Amino acid sequence: MEKVRVDPDSLLDFATALFVQAGLSTEHAATIARVQLEADLRGMHSHGMRAVPTYLDRIRRGIINPRPKLTVTDLGIGVLVDGDAGPGQVVASRAMEECLLRARRQRVGLGFVRNSNHFGAAGYYAEMALAEDMIGFATTNGNLVLAPWGGITPTVGNNPIAIAVPAGEEPPILVDIAMSVVAGGKVDLIAAEGEALPEGWWLDAAGQPTRDLAAALTGLGIPLGAPVAGYKGFALAFAMEALAGALTGARFGREHTLEVENGPLPWNEGHFFLAIDPSLAMPLADFKSRVDQMIREVRSSQPIPGGAPIHAPGELGWRRREQALREGLTLPGSVVQGLQRWANELGITRKLGRAR
Amino acid sequence: MEKVRVDPDSLLDFATALFVQAGLSTEHAATIARVQLEADLRGMHSHGMRAVPTYLDRIRRGIINPRPKLTVTDLGIGVLVDGDAGPGQVVASRAMEECLLRARRQRVGLGFVRNSNHFGAAGYYAEMALAEDMIGFATTNGNLVLAPWGGITPTVGNNPIAIAVPAGEEPPILVDIAMSVVAGGKVDLIAAEGEALPEGWWLDAAGQPTRDLAAALTGLGIPLGAPVAGYKGFALAFAMEALAGALTGARFGREHTLEVENGPLPWNEGHFFLAIDPSLAMPLADFKSRVDQMIREVRSSQPIPGGAPIHAPGELGWRRREQALREGLTLPGSVVQGLQRWANELGITRKLGRAR
Repeated sequence: MEKVRVDPDSLLDFATALFVQAGLSTEHAATIARVQLEADLRGMHSHGMRAVPTYLDRIRRGIINPRPKLTVTDLGIGVLVDGDAGPGQVVASRAMEECLLRARRQRVGLGFVRNSNHFGAAGYYAEMALAEDMIGFATTNGNLVLAPWGGITPTVGNNPIAIAVPAGEEPPILVDIAMSVVAGGKVDLIAAEGEALPEGWWLDAAGQPTRDLAAALTGLGIPLGAPVAGYKGFALAFAMEALAGALTGARFGREHTLEVENGPLPWNEGHFFLAIDPSLAMPLADFKSRVDQMIREVRSSQPIPGGAPIHAPGELGWRRREQALREGLTLPGSVVQGLQRWANELGITRKLGRAR
Repeated sequence: MEKVRVDPDSLLDFATALFVQAGLSTEHAATIARVQLEADLRGMHSHGMRAVPTYLDRIRRGIINPRPKLTVTDLGIGVLVDGDAGPGQVVASRAMEECLLRARRQRVGLGFVRNSNHFGAAGYYAEMALAEDMIGFATTNGNLVLAPWGGITPTVGNNPIAIAVPAGEEPPILVDIAMSVVAGGKVDLIAAEGEALPEGWWLDAAGQPTRDLAAALTGLGIPLGAPVAGYKGFALAFAMEALAGALTGARFGREHTLEVENGPLPWNEGHFFLAIDPSLAMPLADFKSRVDQMIREVRSSQPIPGGAPIHAPGELGWRRREQALREGLTLPGSVVQGLQRWANELGITRKLGRAR
């Protein structure tokens, strides 16, 4: 489908208006829109505005509570947030703020979240730590995507690992990855765009590699390490399920389902956050300059002829973000279509501003 | 090579005697022997007694200091340990003890280690948390194994992620994995045993898959997620390098080398540890029973016909350990040969006890 270039500010306002129309407060609506926009700005369209129609639909179905009353319980060095089935972006942002507050006071902070929903890209919350010159960590559980290695029963979410590390002169490190070879959202995006599913991306429900989109959409992710050691990706996702699910008091494992829409209510997704102040271990400026050195070493690596472009983790997203803010954001056509369909349905007449 | 069944206690004493003869205190010698034995008991022979000859050689070369004076700096919620170039097992065990001490007091503890050496399997230190009913996390940097995705310049170690989570009636969760598809030690073990290198295990120095052992031994690991998304495994290893290397004050990135033996002195390896008391978030008994449920869900997964046996992370190692303690430990022949060669060289006449 043809790509569309839009103005990021206009897109933010447009998405905010959709959520306000769906019943959210302006503040909460803007929070969701901001989290999703940031993913698109980094080129992660699988985790950006693409999800807005899904969220609006979940509000309509009563899966996402548009007017949540968050309960924040102080645990000293940690905080427990009950999200009242609110939008994951709203609940998670609050939890990471509380986590960072504690890390400012005590050098370390933890955030446990229950009764939340899909929160967009985990990296957003890890990156919140950067404004405080801290190391941020975020994970979540969610709808089931991975089966144990050797098995085909969906058992854990495609639980991401997101780690942000502040740098000095270089763009910060951001790791933000699902535990399958590609995130499920990428398969959904391929489907929406009418493209062909690449080889090695997904399994069917019987655990066999497939390039059939219909089979993939009811299938399983391929865990990192496959085909030799797919137990590794599963093990990492399983450990994240223990942190974000078992430890937080949220639903976990097979208490969730393959699709959120067919799942139990409340959906009760869990998140886990951690912030560490690097100045606990050494002067901040020294740490940042050491991180700069790490990043420059990646960039100076000798390339494999014909290989993938070399970037430090997070670097490509950072450069894309700068470019999009300067020149406009290029979105997959299906994403813009999805937003406009919901605008029509909700009776919003404003237009999404195209970039100059 | 033919396997040899030995008595675990006798193996522990035998390895301890080797390190005492090499100049270590009995306590430090026993610590290394214990860490290595535990890996063998779990069937992780790549990370067990196989490494003892390497360590003895490094003591002789002056890479490992046999009589280290550790410096422990209290950082409140964390601790910084300078290992004085001592054996990694000794330094890391001390750091994790200090970390757990803090977690008992404050529910969270961090350990930063510099000036250490190879510490064996990361999982050992994560598992130390289990005795305190805590969640343990351990990582380290080390000799260079991974190049950035798309590149061939070795830039970070094969930095492991180890996470231990206490369970109730089930064996605890243990994730202990290198960020390449297989750990480098497995390639070394294949070489020592005179076996053939399986497909999909390792790359040559030009970044091409190889089944040639000589090429592999000077080559690169295959990062998790390859061939579609090898940037994922590299990104995780890179983040671990930031924690264990940049943050601790140890050498990091290309300040290390492909082989420790050709590296700078002091080698100055870094480790990072974290302990979290789950009772910060919920009653311990509830958490453990939720973890039991997670483990049972894995076990009850429907298998893929002809697929790998299904185990919860850490379960197989736990069962192997129980069996080995009961029936004796079966070691690769090359491991026993290596120990006996060093015993002869060091003038130790005691024999390694075979299991009944």
